[in-house]
Amino acid sequence: MPVTLKDVAARAGVSRSAVSRTFTDGASVSRKTRIKVEDAANALGYAPNALASSLTTGRTKLIGLIVNNFQNPLILEVFDLFTRGLQDRGLRPLLVNLSDATDPAASVRMLRQYSVDGVIVASSTLPSSFAVAFKRAGLPVVHAFGRPSVSPAVHVVGIDNVACGRMAAEALLQRGYRRLAFLGGPEAATSTQDRAAGFLDALRARPDVAVSISFASAYTFDAGRAEMQRLLASPAAEAYFCGDDLLAVGALTAIAEAGLSVPQDIGLIGLNDMEMARWQNIGLTTIRQPVAQIIDAAIDLVVTTIQTPDRPAENRLFPCQVIDRATLR
Amino acid sequence: MPVTLKDVAARAGVSRSAVSRTFTDGASVSRKTRIKVEDAANALGYAPNALASSLTTGRTKLIGLIVNNFQNPLILEVFDLFTRGLQDRGLRPLLVNLSDATDPAASVRMLRQYSVDGVIVASSTLPSSFAVAFKRAGLPVVHAFGRPSVSPAVHVVGIDNVACGRMAAEALLQRGYRRLAFLGGPEAATSTQDRAAGFLDALRARPDVAVSISFASAYTFDAGRAEMQRLLASPAAEAYFCGDDLLAVGALTAIAEAGLSVPQDIGLIGLNDMEMARWQNIGLTTIRQPVAQIIDAAIDLVVTTIQTPDRPAENRLFPCQVIDRATLR
Repeated sequence: MPVTLKDVAARAGVSRSAVSRTFTDGASVSRKTRIKVEDAANALGYAPNALASSLTTGRTKLIGLIVNNFQNPLILEVFDLFTRGLQDRGLRPLLVNLSDATDPAASVRMLRQYSVDGVIVASSTLPSSFAVAFKRAGLPVVHAFGRPSVSPAVHVVGIDNVACGRMAAEALLQRGYRRLAFLGGPEAATSTQDRAAGFLDALRARPDVAVSISFASAYTFDAGRAEMQRLLASPAAEAYFCGDDLLAVGALTAIAEAGLSVPQDIGLIGLNDMEMARWQNIGLTTIRQPVAQIIDAAIDLVVTTIQTPDRPAENRLFPCQVIDRATLR
Repeated sequence: MPVTLKDVAARAGVSRSAVSRTFTDGASVSRKTRIKVEDAANALGYAPNALASSLTTGRTKLIGLIVNNFQNPLILEVFDLFTRGLQDRGLRPLLVNLSDATDPAASVRMLRQYSVDGVIVASSTLPSSFAVAFKRAGLPVVHAFGRPSVSPAVHVVGIDNVACGRMAAEALLQRGYRRLAFLGGPEAATSTQDRAAGFLDALRARPDVAVSISFASAYTFDAGRAEMQRLLASPAAEAYFCGDDLLAVGALTAIAEAGLSVPQDIGLIGLNDMEMARWQNIGLTTIRQPVAQIIDAAIDLVVTTIQTPDRPAENRLFPCQVIDRATLR
């Protein structure tokens, strides 16, 4: 038999209303009563039912985490931090898989059916039209790893990808490379577009430097390997900025398969600093994204937006840093 | 203004009750009416509210996925398959992070608060007392990657870890190794206990073979590296069965750092076949877990257990296979 509110009230020697108020955010209850109720609830193993409480508050405490790429190992850290952060705040993390989604309207219907109080889109490849459609449907929304803009339509938390592109170009220049290339992710991804823009921008005033740009079909190991195989068929650059770490590891593989060495023949720098980048057999020089800060800010913003829906959308961007390992000379 | 059931009824030219029945599982409605209602719902962007429907059915359609290890890359595949599988069935995947959980009773209170219809525990390291406590609290529960038993207390879906231990021993014998060792995960994990038992069992009748066993502190890269560093301080075995792929990659790193080569000096075989095992710089010979079959069976079992709570608990075990790459001679 599940323990009910009535059982807790009887054991604590208080009214049912006092128990209810103890478990309602913001409701008034004396400190003495609260302690009695909590002691009784703990002794009986009682927990207020979220479904029942959502009827009175109109809130489900469900926050959707929207993901469309389950191949990036960075997502593991995102899931861990996101679930811990929400649980610490008494919220419930709902996972929404939009890997195959193409229609924002269909995703809005799905989210409405899910009864979430708010959503965090954790993706650098899902078009911003999705987050915008969620907001238009009345949902508090934060786009983590999204593209910032001067007047953002929704809250954006992440990194400045243009600055990261510049950072990569400068790291390669500093190490004496002069024939540089960007091996990007999918051309439609704003993260790849912005990283390319920053990379090119940093090299604009350098007529002594040769630059080229190409795009892989996805942010995956296989796409990075295939694109590097194609690039190696003609005279290759001295050093590549890869759109992310998975592309970089795929490129590493293609280079080794062609009988060439990293960093002796070709240099590589990635982006993300996924867990595997530090593995000794990989040893990838890369640019680290501050994932913990990004997730923390995303949760903070979605919670405050649920409380004050009309607050203007803002960008919160965190700085990246180069992590030196073994793939640049 | 959100679209209501009334709007859909008006547009479809049917009663409100007909709309309600169309969106209630198992309710009777003619094919003609259903098509009218679905067309109207699609045109208006209507989706039935899960919260409202859970009041009439007593079901929230929330299924908890309980995870306590966000370091294993295999979990990415688990999340992807789990969320797709539930979404396809109109269910909602709730993520529950028990990384730091030590008390089953506290986890039961948390799950009751979460109002889930059922839970899938996806862990080979969470003690079985957790799944059992969830069942005692009245929750339909399936333990994926758990330990099977003759009369299981809860449904268990996964692999036969004893058979995998035997499979690893036989693979090493076949390749001519005679000084063998098991570098296990944490000694308290049933998966490591069972893999060790099968490994030893297969070598019992072989007096010509030397066997040793040791345990890493966790199923992680760092723990595998530390344990292999310790093992290399005294005369090491010729070939190791590592408790999982992350331990194997950590061991690979320690071996390379000691100036030794794989497979020339030491052979390694892992378990899982995580995505990174096939990366060319890793090239790990390993034993593959059929993750898709395991998740599919876990979802199937939790759904049928919600419908028929009294069905006896069962084990569903799937066969593993050796994947040959570059770490055994």
